[in-house]
Amino acid sequence: MKESENIGETLYSWAKDLFPICRSITGPGVRDTLKYLKNIIPELQIHSVPSGTKAFDWVVPDEWVIRNAYIEDESGNRIVDIKENNLHVVGYSVAIDAWMSLSNLEKHLYSLEDQPTAIPYVTSYYNRNWGFCLAHEQRLSLRDEQYHVVIDAELKKGVMNYGEIVIKGESSEEILLSTYICHPSMANNELSGPVVTTGIAQWISSLEARRYTYRIIFIPETIGSIVYISQHEEHLKRHTSAGYVITCIGDDRAYSFLPSRKGNTLADRAAEYVLNNYIDEYSRYTYLERGSDERQYCSPNINLPVCSVMRSKYGTYPEYHTSLDDLSLISPDGLRGGFNVIKKIIKVLEFNHFYKGNTSCEPQMGKRGLYPDISVKNSSGYDEANVILNILAYADGCHDLVQIAEIIEEDFFIVHDVARRLVTHGILEKQ
Amino acid sequence: MKESENIGETLYSWAKDLFPICRSITGPGVRDTLKYLKNIIPELQIHSVPSGTKAFDWVVPDEWVIRNAYIEDESGNRIVDIKENNLHVVGYSVAIDAWMSLSNLEKHLYSLEDQPTAIPYVTSYYNRNWGFCLAHEQRLSLRDEQYHVVIDAELKKGVMNYGEIVIKGESSEEILLSTYICHPSMANNELSGPVVTTGIAQWISSLEARRYTYRIIFIPETIGSIVYISQHEEHLKRHTSAGYVITCIGDDRAYSFLPSRKGNTLADRAAEYVLNNYIDEYSRYTYLERGSDERQYCSPNINLPVCSVMRSKYGTYPEYHTSLDDLSLISPDGLRGGFNVIKKIIKVLEFNHFYKGNTSCEPQMGKRGLYPDISVKNSSGYDEANVILNILAYADGCHDLVQIAEIIEEDFFIVHDVARRLVTHGILEKQ
Amino acid sequence: MKESENIGETLYSWAKDLFPICRSITGPGVRDTLKYLKNIIPELQIHSVPSGTKAFDWVVPDEWVIRNAYIEDESGNRIVDIKENNLHVVGYSVAIDAWMSLSNLEKHLYSLEDQPTAIPYVTSYYNRNWGFCLAHEQRLSLRDEQYHVVIDAELKKGVMNYGEIVIKGESSEEILLSTYICHPSMANNELSGPVVTTGIAQWISSLEARRYTYRIIFIPETIGSIVYISQHEEHLKRHTSAGYVITCIGDDRAYSFLPSRKGNTLADRAAEYVLNNYIDEYSRYTYLERGSDERQYCSPNINLPVCSVMRSKYGTYPEYHTSLDDLSLISPDGLRGGFNVIKKIIKVLEFNHFYKGNTSCEPQMGKRGLYPDISVKNSSGYDEANVILNILAYADGCHDLVQIAEIIEEDFFIVHDVARRLVTHGILEKQ
Repeated sequence: MKESENIGETLYSWAKDLFPICRSITGPGVRDTLKYLKNIIPELQIHSVPSGTKAFDWVVPDEWVIRNAYIEDESGNRIVDIKENNLHVVGYSVAIDAWMSLSNLEKHLYSLEDQPTAIPYVTSYYNRNWGFCLAHEQRLSLRDEQYHVVIDAELKKGVMNYGEIVIKGESSEEILLSTYICHPSMANNELSGPVVTTGIAQWISSLEARRYTYRIIFIPETIGSIVYISQHEEHLKRHTSAGYVITCIGDDRAYSFLPSRKGNTLADRAAEYVLNNYIDEYSRYTYLERGSDERQYCSPNINLPVCSVMRSKYGTYPEYHTSLDDLSLISPDGLRGGFNVIKKIIKVLEFNHFYKGNTSCEPQMGKRGLYPDISVKNSSGYDEANVILNILAYADGCHDLVQIAEIIEEDFFIVHDVARRLVTHGILEKQ
Repeated sequence: MKESENIGETLYSWAKDLFPICRSITGPGVRDTLKYLKNIIPELQIHSVPSGTKAFDWVVPDEWVIRNAYIEDESGNRIVDIKENNLHVVGYSVAIDAWMSLSNLEKHLYSLEDQPTAIPYVTSYYNRNWGFCLAHEQRLSLRDEQYHVVIDAELKKGVMNYGEIVIKGESSEEILLSTYICHPSMANNELSGPVVTTGIAQWISSLEARRYTYRIIFIPETIGSIVYISQHEEHLKRHTSAGYVITCIGDDRAYSFLPSRKGNTLADRAAEYVLNNYIDEYSRYTYLERGSDERQYCSPNINLPVCSVMRSKYGTYPEYHTSLDDLSLISPDGLRGGFNVIKKIIKVLEFNHFYKGNTSCEPQMGKRGLYPDISVKNSSGYDEANVILNILAYADGCHDLVQIAEIIEEDFFIVHDVARRLVTHGILEKQ
Repeated sequence: MKESENIGETLYSWAKDLFPICRSITGPGVRDTLKYLKNIIPELQIHSVPSGTKAFDWVVPDEWVIRNAYIEDESGNRIVDIKENNLHVVGYSVAIDAWMSLSNLEKHLYSLEDQPTAIPYVTSYYNRNWGFCLAHEQRLSLRDEQYHVVIDAELKKGVMNYGEIVIKGESSEEILLSTYICHPSMANNELSGPVVTTGIAQWISSLEARRYTYRIIFIPETIGSIVYISQHEEHLKRHTSAGYVITCIGDDRAYSFLPSRKGNTLADRAAEYVLNNYIDEYSRYTYLERGSDERQYCSPNINLPVCSVMRSKYGTYPEYHTSLDDLSLISPDGLRGGFNVIKKIIKVLEFNHFYKGNTSCEPQMGKRGLYPDISVKNSSGYDEANVILNILAYADGCHDLVQIAEIIEEDFFIVHDVARRLVTHGILEKQ
């Protein structure tokens, strides 16, 4: 994939294809999603972890297969039907086939009084139960009669799947990108995450060279990251230089930043540099407002440098976790904006070395054509020369390029270009 | 003593009983005061340090016995009489029995021009002298005649007394409470100090268990703390986790905080947490405004974590160091408020452990009933679960509970209750 | 030289004498300048470094001798003549003797459109070239005719000169003062620098005793400091406690501070203390606005604690680097102000020891006459006693006197006097 104006359209078309799939934390929906992504980026490895596998305090749950789910009224009308919207069934519902009164059915219905047209997204992963979700206005219209409730579902030993791409770089130091693939038909949270991450993975693969190794994973939220961490704990702790949870990155209403627990890690600094310098406005949340897999990556005994750059953050927009978070909420423009921010952060990370001058005092720039030959006050040659001198002044092996760019108030990429030029001139060395 | 609504009345009644005693840094007044307190709390040990004992740069002074002190005019009227107010005699006055003119007497009179009705509190501990203190308006009314000046006092080898209670706890780490008992009839500065400290000592004794050992001392100011430190220097340095000078804690006009020299010690942090969170408003002074025994405890070569929580701080209210600082200035409410702040600080210290999670990643809270079974957005179960998750997020063995409460903006005692519950659930460990 | 009201006049008279000399980074002008200064302060050693000597990335350039330079018009009028103003010739111009058209001449003319009456100061040290500088209004009046262009100059193997005074103190720790002597007839930038530095050197020499050794150098800017550092690198790194570049210190429009690269070094702290406390107002620049020899002293691999205290900083005033920076721009008052600031900084450095109390707890001040005998509230004796107690409270061997003065908000020199008195009393020790 080449970087192009069309990246937004491409990402949006993937989201459109993936939207109808009924995902949960396990089962065919996850597999279908991963297969679709593997078609785009064949390096994607699809892994299976058996039900019952222990992961720290957790156990991989049984696999959930949902075949059908509907409610029929006495006249045989299917008033709620998973075929119309797969949010209608509570995730991980057990099977049922029974007639019951409205009052008994009510105990298994979920709706949102303050969003009467929205079908809420409800799950019950770790407690066996069943239920239906529907618009509150529909719920109010239900007559007091008998209903035929059918959920054709199965919870059985099986596997939890996840996808993984490792793209080797010059260094064994890694950048971790983590996104999730466990929500049924919702767009900003969640499809924006896997499609932007897939686009980024393609772009990273297409680079001629990479400084870092990239570990990119597509997992079910929470249980997926816990299992992944439990199986790669030492490796992640030793090699992760920076990481990002990629989610809620497809609408065009906002940009958002959620720091790592430690804060001010390389991951945070690169992300905040890009947001501060290339984005007009963004919301900065605190770690107390976290809500995705950074909860696991940053947990005290794991403590990785992982933060999250989003567009409209989960929990902050009204359509969140309802049927209103559909394909109309995200847009090619929104996805492209998110994609470009992640890409810029990665560029910053790739270029963000420590440098050190290899002479004492300032080098003689004039003899290298880096300084005006003639010293006249206010002449323009000084601006460029000053950037060079300022970089040399702080390139002491203790400030990385992001810090130097911030101190000298010069664009990071200009600072990087100049630093590389100074390496060529033999007056600066990459540490 | 049980914690009760009546604690204020009790403390006030003790102050009332102690008010008439003519205290100084040594002598019968100190002994009578300590005996009164020992009746309330029999664990109080009364110690005697002989005059002439060296303590760092200081020497315990001779004991002062004051039997009578008055000024008679030519008509035989006792116009100034220690029996009316024991502030009338300058502390540590030497004996005198002589007739003299008003102009000679004037050299030994002390009054306050700007507080004409107040008898000032004056001492001359380390320079042999004599004098009388009186209201400025009375002084102005003195006729130019001969006066009979009588001070029946003695300065002799004797002892300096102080009281000490050590209440053992589970740990040999100690909390130091220090108050003084060397001022004659004054209420906020000083009787509020020893009565609140005695109430606190009773309450600590009544606890079923204590984490810390409590070292509670009743000393004459300055010389008392210097002598005490000189005789317990290594012990105090090794064992003192936090300490408080308890003084000026009986009126109801203000709360005040004076930090330790180092600042931000455990003592400071616990006190400031309580003041910031449970007191509407308080004045924060700097260590430059110190004036009591923290001068000794915090001196550079001693350097203990000792600060001071007061109501109206010494030197800041007009009645300070005059006869106007009497029983009408303090109140049961004022004393109870001071008592409760000290008690709350001690509770914070008792509970303020470091905790650490004993699993990696978040624990599975659902299986322990700590998380809503059904995930529906905006449901109330999340608030409680979030407190738990936030505590787990910062319980990394590096943040104590006060710090966690501040970071997650949740009440310390709720944080403590939750932490204890999580220990019961086996997902958190006390360090 | 005695410290006197006349110091400003004296410094101004030296500047007046030095003004006509045609200085450059090498050559007779530098030697004449150094000889003049050696007459004032005979300790000045004049050193010679041969052309071609290597210094880090640099090489000492050939020596420039300028004997004459003028432009004649067809009528034989000398329209531009170095004899009128030695800024008329571009520094390091090579020799020329030729007739040329105005359009050819124009390529070698320098003027300032927005300062039409000023002759700019232009140099071409490291690129062989020639040129003339003139007022823009004169340039516009040149007719289109032939001009006779004469520069009688020579670039030849020779030496680069600099001056050095080392005044021994009790300690081998050094204060570095660095000023430059390479600009032709300009006053604030540059003659104010060497004349104030010479005055300071005289004053330091006249002191009965000195704590520090003073290393005072008069060098051509940039190449001079680079050569000096390259020949004294280990010594400077081991012994320099603080250093100052002295330049632009003769007008009376402003005071300015430019910090060292590291910031907050002893040099910075002493300078900022003096500016904050004894100067009404000053401009604080950042290290990004540097422009003189601190560029070399603070360069990452040298990293000395060197900052700069100026009056109107180079580059910030309109007359900078033009013929308008003449003797009318500086004044006796301006020079005296600059001299006094540097002197005060040096006094602060001389006195700025670490002290530590040699008793535990507060000493008994009363027996030493340092505390009021009689304790009466609000009496004036406490103010003085409080200064003593505050010094003792922070004299912990970790805070130097500047820090103590700042913490206790008391004048540094009072703090110093009191500290010395306390040493006499045997209660404080100099570390």
